Amino acid sequence: MAFEQPPAPFPPEVRSEFGLDRGMVFLNHGSFGSVPRSVRAAQDGWRDRLESDPIELIGRRIGELLAEVKRDLATMFGGAAESYGFVTNATEGVNAVLRSLPLAQGDELVCTSHVYFAVKQAMRSRCLESGAVLREVSVPLPVRGARDLIDPVMAAIGPNTRLVLLDHVSSATATRFPVEDLRARLPAHCLLLVDGAHAPGAMDLRIDAIDAEFYTANLHKWVMAPRGSAFLRVRGDWMPRVHPCVISHFFGDGYEKEFDWQGTRDFSAWLAVPAALKFLRELGLQRVIEHNHWLASWAHRQLVEGLGIEPATPLDGSCLTCMASIRLPETLRRFGRVEHLQADLRARERIEVPVMEWDGGWWLRISAAVHNLPEHYEVLLRALQARVAG
Amino acid sequence: MAFEQPPAPFPPEVRSEFGLDRGMVFLNHGSFGSVPRSVRAAQDGWRDRLESDPIELIGRRIGELLAEVKRDLATMFGGAAESYGFVTNATEGVNAVLRSLPLAQGDELVCTSHVYFAVKQAMRSRCLESGAVLREVSVPLPVRGARDLIDPVMAAIGPNTRLVLLDHVSSATATRFPVEDLRARLPAHCLLLVDGAHAPGAMDLRIDAIDAEFYTANLHKWVMAPRGSAFLRVRGDWMPRVHPCVISHFFGDGYEKEFDWQGTRDFSAWLAVPAALKFLRELGLQRVIEHNHWLASWAHRQLVEGLGIEPATPLDGSCLTCMASIRLPETLRRFGRVEHLQADLRARERIEVPVMEWDGGWWLRISAAVHNLPEHYEVLLRALQARVAG
Repeated sequence: MAFEQPPAPFPPEVRSEFGLDRGMVFLNHGSFGSVPRSVRAAQDGWRDRLESDPIELIGRRIGELLAEVKRDLATMFGGAAESYGFVTNATEGVNAVLRSLPLAQGDELVCTSHVYFAVKQAMRSRCLESGAVLREVSVPLPVRGARDLIDPVMAAIGPNTRLVLLDHVSSATATRFPVEDLRARLPAHCLLLVDGAHAPGAMDLRIDAIDAEFYTANLHKWVMAPRGSAFLRVRGDWMPRVHPCVISHFFGDGYEKEFDWQGTRDFSAWLAVPAALKFLRELGLQRVIEHNHWLASWAHRQLVEGLGIEPATPLDGSCLTCMASIRLPETLRRFGRVEHLQADLRARERIEVPVMEWDGGWWLRISAAVHNLPEHYEVLLRALQARVAG
Repeated sequence: MAFEQPPAPFPPEVRSEFGLDRGMVFLNHGSFGSVPRSVRAAQDGWRDRLESDPIELIGRRIGELLAEVKRDLATMFGGAAESYGFVTNATEGVNAVLRSLPLAQGDELVCTSHVYFAVKQAMRSRCLESGAVLREVSVPLPVRGARDLIDPVMAAIGPNTRLVLLDHVSSATATRFPVEDLRARLPAHCLLLVDGAHAPGAMDLRIDAIDAEFYTANLHKWVMAPRGSAFLRVRGDWMPRVHPCVISHFFGDGYEKEFDWQGTRDFSAWLAVPAALKFLRELGLQRVIEHNHWLASWAHRQLVEGLGIEPATPLDGSCLTCMASIRLPETLRRFGRVEHLQADLRARERIEVPVMEWDGGWWLRISAAVHNLPEHYEVLLRALQARVAG
């Protein structure tokens, strides 16, 4: 696809499913998602049921209720239903894996320079307590293709590398990493933890085919489930050795029971996940993925050409999903801090879009969701052009 | 108070604030609470706001929004607002403290035989990874008074005791432990972690006066906040050393920032806590505490006298808050398992009440909340009498 034309938008009745302030140009679905009204209604329904009969549903039936949700997840993303454990967010999934891993002085944990900062902090913390070493591998942009993203990682792996953590889609740089290729090339002594925070609903995802020991992901971004719904999927051989961050009643009783019960919580977010999967299926998962990818790739091209900058990833969209990041022209650094530019775009143009520092530059990330329209990115381009011109 | 007469119930309009199935005799507010409609409406309002402008409210303003909630908590329960960190439940609070504590081979963690099982599991897990030893001190029932609950703990403390974990109100046995007395008698080398899961809203609670290093509690039980709202309060000298279970962006930036941001979640539960405190204040916190205590103590006495059993705690209610546990007559063990008796009471009498094994006996725990009426316990007593008679 050339991405010279924007894709046809979803109809207004789909876009009006979202409670976003209509006065805003909302280009940051990627941070905290946006929940369709039908999904929220399903969650409300669960809250009514839980409220009406809490002991029966939370105390006695929660395992079977969550098992149903996990079957739905496994149908969509592959693997055994019982290998899915619910967490609040992908950062929690990463923490659970890191804590469950026996680490000793001299062990190495590897990540790339694209790693999500919260995850890097969790790795740092785990290294501080265990004596392991965190090795952050520089993967500079621009890249010509997926292979450029993996070669530096492979070059950094040594005999002491215990675990490689790879972002499936990176946060600041919105780049899709070829995790399957890394898995195929990884030596047997290296465990693979994929941070798929931005992956489900954003690509054709079959987690079992990736064959990582650990895969964690958010459902509140591109699956559009309620915030606080995320999962950790652990490969069968590792399931008995992985525990949730909160040790509770069922410690030692196995992965399923331990993750199902991490203390009292509002289970309605997890229970509403099937409603989000249904929303996606009714729109057509493939259609959503293609629309968002096409829109992100088209907008990426518009911004790159309109600003006359070098793209960080190929213009054919091969390293993108439904987000794209551009390195902003240096002149915009006169705003002093990324937050100031971001605040200016919000205050004066009603555009909500993240601007982040990465690898010495300022990066702007766009998201393309089913509620976005081509003109949203045209508004952004004009706003950036005006600011570049001064 | 003699507790020979039940207290005047709250009016119907208060009781109809709760979404509980009206066909049930609901005597287990203590497990997962029940959320008044006004509190849920406040939470829904927050969810609308978060949905409308997620980046502004979650990404940029969440710290100030939570600070407001913490000020409200500190006003009600004492201490500095910034010493409160939000967690999902008290078990998570306990996990955070245990993980943050440097423990070495030979260190001892002390709890009582009344410890909540999930918390004991967290202690066991932490001992397994650190080489510390868990010492569970038997505190048998019946007791004549509060002092009997503390003397065995004091007798178990030795030079290697690093931390004492005490339930403020125990779960299975519904007994109020005099944590202030323990604190006063505890040697300087022992840290105190109070599991106040059932305490806020159930007693006149001033956490700063207890002066424990660590105090964790649920707000979704007796404060009637949405499920998933709980806190960990850490004494100032320990705040820089305590981290949440999920290490995220602000690792190393201090207690407040670390606890405020544990990854994306549905913040509406925490943000609705002031609505629950308002509901309590409007009913009159002291009136609620007294009503519930009176009702629990009265019902306790009815059950003990009606079944002709020995009370586990004094009939004057001095070891109770708004729950009471009775040791069931041995004849009821013909049901085979506690779950079977519980299921029978639910199926045939529409009574929801927990039955638990503890210290070789079967225990039944009643809760007394603002939605409960004296006749609820009369229904229970008749049901138990019928089953004891066979």
